[in-house]
Amino acid sequence: MNPVIELLRRHRSIRSYTSEPVTDDMLEAIVRSAQMASTSSNVQAYSVIAVMNPDTKRALAAVTGGQRHVEQCPVLLVWCADLRRDRLACAKEGTDMVSDTMENFVVATVDVALAAQNAAVAAESLGLGIVYIGGIRNDLREVTRLLKVPELVFPVFGMCLGFPDRDSSVRPRLPVRAVLHRETYADDGQAEAIDEYDRTMRDYYIERTGGKRDTTWSKEMADKFARPVRDYLRDYLEEQGFRFDR
Amino acid sequence: MNPVIELLRRHRSIRSYTSEPVTDDMLEAIVRSAQMASTSSNVQAYSVIAVMNPDTKRALAAVTGGQRHVEQCPVLLVWCADLRRDRLACAKEGTDMVSDTMENFVVATVDVALAAQNAAVAAESLGLGIVYIGGIRNDLREVTRLLKVPELVFPVFGMCLGFPDRDSSVRPRLPVRAVLHRETYADDGQAEAIDEYDRTMRDYYIERTGGKRDTTWSKEMADKFARPVRDYLRDYLEEQGFRFDR
Repeated sequence: MNPVIELLRRHRSIRSYTSEPVTDDMLEAIVRSAQMASTSSNVQAYSVIAVMNPDTKRALAAVTGGQRHVEQCPVLLVWCADLRRDRLACAKEGTDMVSDTMENFVVATVDVALAAQNAAVAAESLGLGIVYIGGIRNDLREVTRLLKVPELVFPVFGMCLGFPDRDSSVRPRLPVRAVLHRETYADDGQAEAIDEYDRTMRDYYIERTGGKRDTTWSKEMADKFARPVRDYLRDYLEEQGFRFDR
Repeated sequence: MNPVIELLRRHRSIRSYTSEPVTDDMLEAIVRSAQMASTSSNVQAYSVIAVMNPDTKRALAAVTGGQRHVEQCPVLLVWCADLRRDRLACAKEGTDMVSDTMENFVVATVDVALAAQNAAVAAESLGLGIVYIGGIRNDLREVTRLLKVPELVFPVFGMCLGFPDRDSSVRPRLPVRAVLHRETYADDGQAEAIDEYDRTMRDYYIERTGGKRDTTWSKEMADKFARPVRDYLRDYLEEQGFRFDR
């Protein structure tokens, strides 16, 4: 263990912030750290929109189903997969960009996630708390309207930034053997690892809620995946100019 | 600046390794750090396959077009978007998992990227060097065969791990103003930022190659995006059980 690994291992989502602002110097240090993440063939296929305007944060909080921290955080970062700048670079050279492949969509989506995770680590190293906001995908057409998101840009998730008002607990993860395979992928032992994690998470929920929440990871997953959610996403992405035929 | 941000800002890909092994303790610390990254609604929709077998690494190096570091590194991690474990959890509860949405594909692809970037940071904090290997996507059917990758699992990228044999330079990134937008997405200034970065990268390539490589970022992007690459990917993903109709 070292201080960096200790920082990574201490991560927990923060959903309540003090009124202390995130300075512009902090924001720039965070974004510059994000930019140093690896990027596929240097395409740097991402952008980030820093939202501080209270009206915009309120409107985005509504998109997420009323998550109060989206409104309350001093800065909401909206992380976008972005092939638009690469298209500009191609145009500068007189080249029509090929943007209509699953490969390019995956490249941009991975690129933005790598950058965002570096940002999360940098922010936490500065004493800030963060939480990823997948809930912006509830209504990306509204997000697109609010943030004037143009063609070939896909807002993938938000991230609240702010100084933690109260701490929260570190949530246990799956046993490492469930996630780490050796030499080849093996289903052996997955069922037992899930059983073990179900017991861990049941204890965790019970302790955290004084017995009010009695559930397991498998029950949470069964509930989450029983119905399709956000099933307009493919149509939205096509509206933004992404294509998935090949 | 602090030591964590300094570590992030010092990142450069390492493609040549000493013979010093990556110990099992290191590997476990790295994967446990990866697991602490944020994950959408705790789905933890990823797996990682640690490949050390020389024959497998050689075969995977061939897939990447002969990248020698893929064979030479002591450990190659293959990071997979993975909805399979979530399906097992659903099955345990008697629920048929809905896995056929773009949303679930995006969730799993983002989840694995966040985890992998934490792994990269943890590895570098231990003095290891890393390089992401998008080249495994050259032929995922072969990767699937070699690593026995089952349904609902998508190997997104590899990552070489090892102690650096020689250092390499930190590659400049786009000006921060190209990537960071305020309140709304703005195209203003993108062309100028690209021009500035083209000059920076031209100087960087010339200095690094003693004048042999005279190119710009825009030229590199125009070259990269002029033709479709890996345009079998959508078909492959459907073979693995992913769907994109909604």
